[in-house]
Amino acid sequence: MKTKYLIPLAAVATAALLPSVGVAQEAGVEAAAHTSYILTTLLFLVGGFLVFWMAAGFAMLEAGLVRSKNVTMQLTKNISLFAIAAIMYWFVGFGIMYPADWLIEGWLGPFFAITTLEPVGLDPADAALDYASAGSDFFFQLMFCATTASIVSGTLAERIKLWPFLTFVVVLTGFIYPIEASWQWGGGWLSEAGFSDFAGSTLVHAAGGFAALAGAIVLGPRLGKYGKDGKINPMPGSNLALATLGTFILWLGWFGFNGGSQLAMGTVGDVADVSRIFANTNMAAAAGALAALILTQVVYGKTDLTMVLNGALAGLVSITAEPLTPELWQALIIGAIGGVIVVFTVPMLDRMKIDDVVGAIPVHLIAGLWGTFIVPWTNDGAGFLTQIMGMAAIGSFVFVSSLIVFYVLKATIGLRASEEDEINGLDVSELGMEAYPEFAKG
Amino acid sequence: MKTKYLIPLAAVATAALLPSVGVAQEAGVEAAAHTSYILTTLLFLVGGFLVFWMAAGFAMLEAGLVRSKNVTMQLTKNISLFAIAAIMYWFVGFGIMYPADWLIEGWLGPFFAITTLEPVGLDPADAALDYASAGSDFFFQLMFCATTASIVSGTLAERIKLWPFLTFVVVLTGFIYPIEASWQWGGGWLSEAGFSDFAGSTLVHAAGGFAALAGAIVLGPRLGKYGKDGKINPMPGSNLALATLGTFILWLGWFGFNGGSQLAMGTVGDVADVSRIFANTNMAAAAGALAALILTQVVYGKTDLTMVLNGALAGLVSITAEPLTPELWQALIIGAIGGVIVVFTVPMLDRMKIDDVVGAIPVHLIAGLWGTFIVPWTNDGAGFLTQIMGMAAIGSFVFVSSLIVFYVLKATIGLRASEEDEINGLDVSELGMEAYPEFAKG
Amino acid sequence: MKTKYLIPLAAVATAALLPSVGVAQEAGVEAAAHTSYILTTLLFLVGGFLVFWMAAGFAMLEAGLVRSKNVTMQLTKNISLFAIAAIMYWFVGFGIMYPADWLIEGWLGPFFAITTLEPVGLDPADAALDYASAGSDFFFQLMFCATTASIVSGTLAERIKLWPFLTFVVVLTGFIYPIEASWQWGGGWLSEAGFSDFAGSTLVHAAGGFAALAGAIVLGPRLGKYGKDGKINPMPGSNLALATLGTFILWLGWFGFNGGSQLAMGTVGDVADVSRIFANTNMAAAAGALAALILTQVVYGKTDLTMVLNGALAGLVSITAEPLTPELWQALIIGAIGGVIVVFTVPMLDRMKIDDVVGAIPVHLIAGLWGTFIVPWTNDGAGFLTQIMGMAAIGSFVFVSSLIVFYVLKATIGLRASEEDEINGLDVSELGMEAYPEFAKG
Repeated sequence: MKTKYLIPLAAVATAALLPSVGVAQEAGVEAAAHTSYILTTLLFLVGGFLVFWMAAGFAMLEAGLVRSKNVTMQLTKNISLFAIAAIMYWFVGFGIMYPADWLIEGWLGPFFAITTLEPVGLDPADAALDYASAGSDFFFQLMFCATTASIVSGTLAERIKLWPFLTFVVVLTGFIYPIEASWQWGGGWLSEAGFSDFAGSTLVHAAGGFAALAGAIVLGPRLGKYGKDGKINPMPGSNLALATLGTFILWLGWFGFNGGSQLAMGTVGDVADVSRIFANTNMAAAAGALAALILTQVVYGKTDLTMVLNGALAGLVSITAEPLTPELWQALIIGAIGGVIVVFTVPMLDRMKIDDVVGAIPVHLIAGLWGTFIVPWTNDGAGFLTQIMGMAAIGSFVFVSSLIVFYVLKATIGLRASEEDEINGLDVSELGMEAYPEFAKG
Repeated sequence: MKTKYLIPLAAVATAALLPSVGVAQEAGVEAAAHTSYILTTLLFLVGGFLVFWMAAGFAMLEAGLVRSKNVTMQLTKNISLFAIAAIMYWFVGFGIMYPADWLIEGWLGPFFAITTLEPVGLDPADAALDYASAGSDFFFQLMFCATTASIVSGTLAERIKLWPFLTFVVVLTGFIYPIEASWQWGGGWLSEAGFSDFAGSTLVHAAGGFAALAGAIVLGPRLGKYGKDGKINPMPGSNLALATLGTFILWLGWFGFNGGSQLAMGTVGDVADVSRIFANTNMAAAAGALAALILTQVVYGKTDLTMVLNGALAGLVSITAEPLTPELWQALIIGAIGGVIVVFTVPMLDRMKIDDVVGAIPVHLIAGLWGTFIVPWTNDGAGFLTQIMGMAAIGSFVFVSSLIVFYVLKATIGLRASEEDEINGLDVSELGMEAYPEFAKG
Repeated sequence: MKTKYLIPLAAVATAALLPSVGVAQEAGVEAAAHTSYILTTLLFLVGGFLVFWMAAGFAMLEAGLVRSKNVTMQLTKNISLFAIAAIMYWFVGFGIMYPADWLIEGWLGPFFAITTLEPVGLDPADAALDYASAGSDFFFQLMFCATTASIVSGTLAERIKLWPFLTFVVVLTGFIYPIEASWQWGGGWLSEAGFSDFAGSTLVHAAGGFAALAGAIVLGPRLGKYGKDGKINPMPGSNLALATLGTFILWLGWFGFNGGSQLAMGTVGDVADVSRIFANTNMAAAAGALAALILTQVVYGKTDLTMVLNGALAGLVSITAEPLTPELWQALIIGAIGGVIVVFTVPMLDRMKIDDVVGAIPVHLIAGLWGTFIVPWTNDGAGFLTQIMGMAAIGSFVFVSSLIVFYVLKATIGLRASEEDEINGLDVSELGMEAYPEFAKG
């Protein structure tokens, strides 16, 4: 950290010695390309740390929405799934997702693919000057893989055991997500078919939601959630301040999620596009929150904070498939419908006795599909049929493969905590550690 | 997110084909202008997401400083007011604040003004190359509008009903703030008169504080706050960890608030100025915190954490009117006096029976005026009389218009929760949802 | 915030008037140097605000790991120590750390050294175009000084009085840290000897850990922590959600801590290096968390969340001495061993009856030494003997000087709260303010 670096303006400086216009011009082109490379790399680094921050957002949101006897477990799951995603995506996921980079390297290809990070002190002559550093790209893409896993943990909270859950995360982040993401972002068949999903309403959010749905079906609802008389018992979250904090964190991180997905910041047009994306993302979130705020007041006679939080998130998920092309009023409508979806599908799931502890299926799956479906409204390059095909393909692949994994886990190591452990709470029974040991239960 | 963009270095590359020195030079000038545009836009995007984060800071600070029976309500208000600000500022506020852009467009002009976002894939020839993208500028400015509303919610906590409060936010963010801000930042009469308020000590913070003061007067104090015998009953915040988190969030966001207000990062001089602003902002916050720390120890014999938190915030507010020109030792003095102001004005307000739940009036109004007043000490371009005139103009406009809106709301839909609801807490009575449902009250 | 700046492309524009190739080329070199200066300055500003955020992370981590009766005190200490660090580092620390800048200025030199911030509207001709603005550098370096102090507060929690602790912080941030850091980052004898510590595994983390160790020894353990029968009484943290949030905040901030320590972002090679650093930092944290997760399950039969959190932090500390040269698999190993260290040294300290409330000594001291020691594995420029010498020099200096300061404080104003105050909790006894006044103790 000490040395002050001399800026190696080598190319430019060398050019300055050569008294020819052409060389001077070439040097100018080269300097512009370097600047562009630096700026796009910077977009990935900033976007990446913002999406990293979303892992904290999910942890806080979910820890706030579970009952206090399961908070330590929820926190443990969320930080652990991020660690697993970081390692599995490096170990194998990245190689699967971008197959062009490894197919030529033989059977070991997909593994450790990213050991091809740039060398220290990269020579510009060896750089992908029309893009960004592979290190920053890997860092950024990794966060999307982790996000997919974060979505699942909320739905399955309060009853799935730690290690079966983490085993599922290994498969999801190492294989299921990279395979389906390669279809589109790896330049695969969906991308060739013209499917359009800018930052991952379907590839990340609906995919996470489908995995969560599969898990919820295999696992069954929490004890006592659905009474024999058809009564649905509310199980309020233990800390709404934490849940609200998590929502704000996710909202903040989403600027990186969507903005970074422009994948370029080196030109006037690209940075103006990133700006549109920021403005649209914020608008959709605001519209989703407001729609849920008003709707819960109108429908239930009382505003429901958890619905407002999930409304904001649904607005964000909805705009994620296409945050660039909408005008602000269109972003408002897309996000507001996301918020409306949440208010109506949360009770619908309960009627189907699918127990989704934090509402991740309405927010990520259903609003994710809505956002993906509506892309052609604002983006001429997309078509409704192709969108539906893409959603169906990804949805069925993720749902079926997740279902298989969950059933295999259930049949082998077991998925679900014992009745007694569930009643006592996973914190005491599985971890022996309470999140709030000194606060008396009221 | 999939396609790797080819950087359109069109202008430069085209120039390279033309063998004339002048063209090469023009290409160089153009490339530099592009880079400058990108960097200033980036400043707005990063500054904007940092100021967005302040909305979370206010939510945590206020949720931590109210009693637990009003926490859900405080969270609901804070996320909702941000959503409303985002939509109102787009719907009408931005158009009012920058009138030059719409006066020519007829009576519908101020509405939806920002539908003039840049088109997707902006052509550099159509870009405001000497500034930044309108999208990023809108995104950044919007956050200041929302901040103004966040300030109000804390003062009026624990007794104002949800919908009247949100109705006030509609007027504040759509009209009151944009009108007064247009006087200065829209190039209006205050700016022409030489008023100086770099990032908004008065335009944002004192304005929010004046609105809060008007609300506190119309609303009256919380039940039991001021005893008949003149006794002031402390009503301690329910979660100081949350309040401290909120303060740290605000401190972090303030680097974007003040630094982004440089409005330029494309030159050596501008980025060095942004650096000065960061260093001064941090110094003023530290000095405000330390002044309150020492002063509460000396005056009361015990250090008071909430005073330290508010001291840091007052330091930040104080430096906001002029974070650029002070030397670090001057920033220290400006911020420290902000901290001193808080320690002495919080009890003063209580003696006046103005019930400000979180101390927002001392922090934002009084320290905001102090910071604005002292600008001429370090900035030769400002004068004390003009500063006073500006503060008086903005203060009286915001105070009187807010007073009118609050009185109208009181006379129509009613402002204040019933006695019974207030005693039971707004969470249960208005929302039917507790923030910490499992923690027994001690 | 109002004026739209005209970008002073003066140098370039002037060049455009002069019809000579050489001048055009010079203008190009100059423009590239300006861009490089802006980008490196931006790295310091973004890196700096991320490291600032770590102060919040420490506050949350420590407030979550102490018992509820000491939470207000822990929050007070953490925000106050940051304020003190900000002022002391400016007042004297920065001048001591970079002595070349002041030795020529006479005896007042080290004081207020940083009043040499760039003037407002810096002329590029006066700028350190091969580096960054002094303002951004100061802002960035200051955060490292504050981090060192944050480490100490956790270890000494629940028993040290407020003012003696803050007095120690004055000495640590004004003198002890700047002196030892000057040996390496100020271009001193350690740097000349070839010691290698990229972002401060030893200079910041082990140094903070040595100071904490000295304090823990002088202070003694908490009442009741170690029974007369040799039994170690667990004293669980009061809020694991807060502790997890703190860990996520620290993880996020660490991207700035390590990435910013590249000290340059103006070239393709530098930004690619920053990318490597981000990827390696994330990998080491993930590996540390995962190692602790698995190991606590295997060794104790139950996963321990606080160990997982400290494992992630130990991974981060371990990679901090050299986040650039390792390949990702090497970062994984370095970080994982950090996590293993934590699991084994936390109980070891307890057996030695050194009471480290939050585990800062294992995380920052022991993992910091591990990370520093292993640098030569991946960095050819470093040698094991020199690494050991550096660790010994810094360790003994910081430990001994801290020991002296703590003993002097103990002998004069006293270090430790009275037995009664400790039993009642420092919040009530020293501050008269509870963090969670409404939650009944269970």
